[in-house]
Amino acid sequence: MDYSPALMTDMYEYTMLDACLKDGTADRKCVFEVFTRHLPAGRRYGVVAGTGRILDALERFHLDDEDLRFLADRHVVSPETIKWLEDFHFSGSIKGYREGEMFFPNSPILEIEGTFGECTLLETLVLSILNYDSAVASAASRMVSAAKDRPCMDMGGRRTNEWSAVAAARAAVVGGFKGTANLLAAQMYGLKAIGTAAHCFTLVHDSERQAFESQIAALGKNTTLLVDTYNIEEAVKTAVEVAGPELGGVRIDSGDLALMAQRVRNQLDALGATNTKITVTNDLDEYALAALQTAPVDSYGVGTMLVTGSGAPTCAMVYKLTEREGADGTMQTVAKKSKNKATVPGRKLAYRSYEYNLADVEHVVSGSEDQLAAFTPEEGWKDLLVPFVDHGEIDHQWQGHDAIVNAHKYRAKALAELPIAAQSLMRGDPVIPTEITVL
Amino acid sequence: MDYSPALMTDMYEYTMLDACLKDGTADRKCVFEVFTRHLPAGRRYGVVAGTGRILDALERFHLDDEDLRFLADRHVVSPETIKWLEDFHFSGSIKGYREGEMFFPNSPILEIEGTFGECTLLETLVLSILNYDSAVASAASRMVSAAKDRPCMDMGGRRTNEWSAVAAARAAVVGGFKGTANLLAAQMYGLKAIGTAAHCFTLVHDSERQAFESQIAALGKNTTLLVDTYNIEEAVKTAVEVAGPELGGVRIDSGDLALMAQRVRNQLDALGATNTKITVTNDLDEYALAALQTAPVDSYGVGTMLVTGSGAPTCAMVYKLTEREGADGTMQTVAKKSKNKATVPGRKLAYRSYEYNLADVEHVVSGSEDQLAAFTPEEGWKDLLVPFVDHGEIDHQWQGHDAIVNAHKYRAKALAELPIAAQSLMRGDPVIPTEITVL
Repeated sequence: MDYSPALMTDMYEYTMLDACLKDGTADRKCVFEVFTRHLPAGRRYGVVAGTGRILDALERFHLDDEDLRFLADRHVVSPETIKWLEDFHFSGSIKGYREGEMFFPNSPILEIEGTFGECTLLETLVLSILNYDSAVASAASRMVSAAKDRPCMDMGGRRTNEWSAVAAARAAVVGGFKGTANLLAAQMYGLKAIGTAAHCFTLVHDSERQAFESQIAALGKNTTLLVDTYNIEEAVKTAVEVAGPELGGVRIDSGDLALMAQRVRNQLDALGATNTKITVTNDLDEYALAALQTAPVDSYGVGTMLVTGSGAPTCAMVYKLTEREGADGTMQTVAKKSKNKATVPGRKLAYRSYEYNLADVEHVVSGSEDQLAAFTPEEGWKDLLVPFVDHGEIDHQWQGHDAIVNAHKYRAKALAELPIAAQSLMRGDPVIPTEITVL
Repeated sequence: MDYSPALMTDMYEYTMLDACLKDGTADRKCVFEVFTRHLPAGRRYGVVAGTGRILDALERFHLDDEDLRFLADRHVVSPETIKWLEDFHFSGSIKGYREGEMFFPNSPILEIEGTFGECTLLETLVLSILNYDSAVASAASRMVSAAKDRPCMDMGGRRTNEWSAVAAARAAVVGGFKGTANLLAAQMYGLKAIGTAAHCFTLVHDSERQAFESQIAALGKNTTLLVDTYNIEEAVKTAVEVAGPELGGVRIDSGDLALMAQRVRNQLDALGATNTKITVTNDLDEYALAALQTAPVDSYGVGTMLVTGSGAPTCAMVYKLTEREGADGTMQTVAKKSKNKATVPGRKLAYRSYEYNLADVEHVVSGSEDQLAAFTPEEGWKDLLVPFVDHGEIDHQWQGHDAIVNAHKYRAKALAELPIAAQSLMRGDPVIPTEITVL
């Protein structure tokens, strides 16, 4: 299964490359931009995630002999293009919004600069990663706000594609989650792995008591016992009998979670297990989390709604050509004019301005390279674009475990700088407006 | 990136294994069942997909040294369990609904039989694959019905995780689609790859005419030209001037698709390009496809709504223990009693009965192995369970390209045997009821 990301792309990217190599336009310098025209209905902001994975993919982006043979056998491209692809590597530059940063309609989340040939091959891969990862991080961020200080853990792997599960675990942490049940994500990205037990574990034993005894014997008293296989009250009683008041936690996975959490809390306290934590799971989303605010819950396991973006499984980001070299060698801004899909031409700068320490406007400035170089932002504007790749050289600070930790922290800070309406679950427009200035 | 699927799982599967190896229950014979309690709101049926991918994953399911070191270093399991995992392979049996088969609430889509230890390690992986792939196949099937005889093509890769995109392409074909834009899916599964051109291809050229000339030169006159970058009417005129009336097709990706298709059809006909096909794309779903029935469209490219399951990105399938060996060595049916989540105990048989050549009831029969062996279905009942794995031996007929082709054909046949209400887009209950008989 050692697949390169090079074929994780739509066929037309290769056929366009083929045509452009033949007519000479493949070498034209180009600027592509990734942005979304709108947030999911009613959302106040989005959270960028996936950029680090794009850089990982870029490192492994090459075509091996089998890939080249496939393209040749299927006549996707001509023999000349096969030659061109043999030692392909991306030599362009990429900058954009960092992971954990908030985005809005028309935020230039990623800007890819290079030749048409090399940039066009990345389109689908870049969009796949950003669209899914940002959808999960955006949902996660809302959930974390709704959960207030209580930690949220990703338990959604089983409700999405097996590789999406790994990406979702990572994006969830960017979006504010504390850990994941997914072992491969924990291994690949050094994330905190968490777990309790499943109902089958209780059922495979001859009694609930035996199951609890077994789990305590293997994992110690600090483990979390699942108490809703049969009767919750009985189970809690048994759990404390088996583990003593030092029992780490119990998990409730069904029924009226607020009611059950309150009953279980009182029961635990009465049994002297005042430090035993209560984890609840079962189709939680940000609204359910908000509704549980007054319930005595200590942490949440979130599954389906996290990995499916809580109703918005994709961010509708697009990858558009905004500037290219013309026949005369000069750079020219371009834009298509399709109905309802018109794009703002030219490369972009992006800033966030503040008033009374709160963000008030997202500024997107478009123009030629020279115009943008001469542009001076106002004092106090935050520059939102950071360099990820410089002429093919990847800045590794945006990859791996540390990048995720930094993004996790950055999101909390950046969210705190938005008007508090961003954290409300009320439907509404983006919490700050985006002003586009065409120089 | 040579990852085994063995860590594509929730941590608790390994910690439960660890506890069960210590207390002896890991060797208990068990029967697990995959089913869903309900279809997505208003859906009349679902389509199974992903089983072939589960078998692929099972073949590669092993833990390498790095995986074992990770589990040891993180203290997920004890040294004894590491030893047990060193030469793990699944030795159990799996049967279930074939790909392309319709499913309903409580359909026993997959039944996994083996020791508790080996079955519990598969839970998350099996659910990830079935939940996502079946969501896509189910959406695809509704779209194909809505599109009537017009072919639907998957173009959704950019709107979902990069590996989901590959799985979605495969599941879409199981669900009735004819091909995909995704090259890796085409390579891995031998699917038909399709493609046109993107707006950036037109924009990188100095004129739309030059772009069209370049595409025709590279791909021949049978290619499909994208005509909505600037002005559709102008573009169609240019397209026929460049390619002549032998032009293969045009693609419209914006605006009022029905209106534009009609105008473009009339224009093409007036220009003598009577055989030039019209493909439309742009946020299509089954409702949009139904609304386009009277428009002169020849084929559809479907993206976002396909790969996100058209509003239902997961099938809510669960993996439940229904029977296990007890302390006395006899098999015992089990079921948890959690509120709203109670399960039907025991292994299952599943049949579909017919009246006037139309399906009328899904029969799920539950009981002990002996009871089921003695059960005789009524005449004409279709047995829905097929064997996929027999004591660790995979039946390879359910894997690879041929399996997908067979599933594609099977779906059409099985759908035709359902009451026609199944193909309606009207919201409603499952088109046939499921009757559960507990022996």
